[in-house]
Amino acid sequence: MYNIGMNKQISEKTINRLTLYHCILCDYIKKGEEYISSKQIASLLKIDDSQVRKDINLLNNSGKSRVGYIVKDLKKSIETTLGFSKTKRAYIIGAGNLGSALANYNNFSNYGLNIISLFDNDQNKIGKEINNKKILDIKELPVYAWQHFIDIAILTVPEQYAQSIADFLVNAGIKYIWNFTPTVLNVPYDVQVWNENLMGNFLQFTYNIN
Amino acid sequence: MYNIGMNKQISEKTINRLTLYHCILCDYIKKGEEYISSKQIASLLKIDDSQVRKDINLLNNSGKSRVGYIVKDLKKSIETTLGFSKTKRAYIIGAGNLGSALANYNNFSNYGLNIISLFDNDQNKIGKEINNKKILDIKELPVYAWQHFIDIAILTVPEQYAQSIADFLVNAGIKYIWNFTPTVLNVPYDVQVWNENLMGNFLQFTYNIN
Repeated sequence: MYNIGMNKQISEKTINRLTLYHCILCDYIKKGEEYISSKQIASLLKIDDSQVRKDINLLNNSGKSRVGYIVKDLKKSIETTLGFSKTKRAYIIGAGNLGSALANYNNFSNYGLNIISLFDNDQNKIGKEINNKKILDIKELPVYAWQHFIDIAILTVPEQYAQSIADFLVNAGIKYIWNFTPTVLNVPYDVQVWNENLMGNFLQFTYNIN
Repeated sequence: MYNIGMNKQISEKTINRLTLYHCILCDYIKKGEEYISSKQIASLLKIDDSQVRKDINLLNNSGKSRVGYIVKDLKKSIETTLGFSKTKRAYIIGAGNLGSALANYNNFSNYGLNIISLFDNDQNKIGKEINNKKILDIKELPVYAWQHFIDIAILTVPEQYAQSIADFLVNAGIKYIWNFTPTVLNVPYDVQVWNENLMGNFLQFTYNIN
């Protein structure tokens, strides 16, 4: 749960919805729209507009007019509440297709996730760049981690190497691993792993398809 | 919620945990282990072992011995309960880095997600294969969708094309879109979209990093 002061707390499901509202608001800004109603947001996400209003009431949002929320103000309120301004330094471990896709995903920086560079063991990749992010030799990671601060390692290596690379990251002092491999990693208690469980998501989505 | 008969229902959070247990069981089978305890599962996921036992009690699992659950039986029980045997035919729309990564992700087929082929508009890609899956011309999708049954379109195109390609998919009769783009899609009521909201996940993970 997020604690946002004054004993207001935000659940994980609400965080997820707020980031989706944020996507919609970014899109409205691109289109030059100034106002948005809870009904417009609700209709895009196929949820109830009372849910949208309830979520927005959790924010310290003052930008409301008779014609709806002021898009820029609401966007700013979500950013402030969810702490997008606290920038985190992240490194992608594994410059394969998934690592490259994430390195190219510019949207992350809007949310305070700053991907600095990638690490790989392939001599053909080391030294090259993806989206202005250099691919470094994985062997250099321990020294690099000691010299620079690494908040998060984003693990995108092939499944069969996931545990051994995770051990290597833990030994290098990394405390947060965002795990995109379909492996449950065995790590010490003071290391946090977030499993990007695509299959779990898929099964939630598709159970009702006959 | 999943309805698994006899009025037992499985929440989305439980589905997510069960797929993680399934990953652990696959790993145990690879290692040749015959038994697993709730404590071993709980320790890997850093959750309480009473939670693991509670989740497993929801399954019709009979493979329990004094030394723990029988790995193969428990794996089978999870597969039966979550319906992995109901195969779904999916197509990846966009053969870029992310689309290629998903096409290479062999783990999907273990969960009943059968990725048949990819669609793209890049003439340099059309006709090539990724992981034995052919890249077809996106222009052919409407005819293809009419001839073959497409359960799910996995959308991995660049953000700026997401809505127009979604419109195109809807017109071709696609009813389920697994959306990996950071765009909230505007689709008719009878089309279901699952937003793979990486930023929402990221924020849940990193909020406690100072």
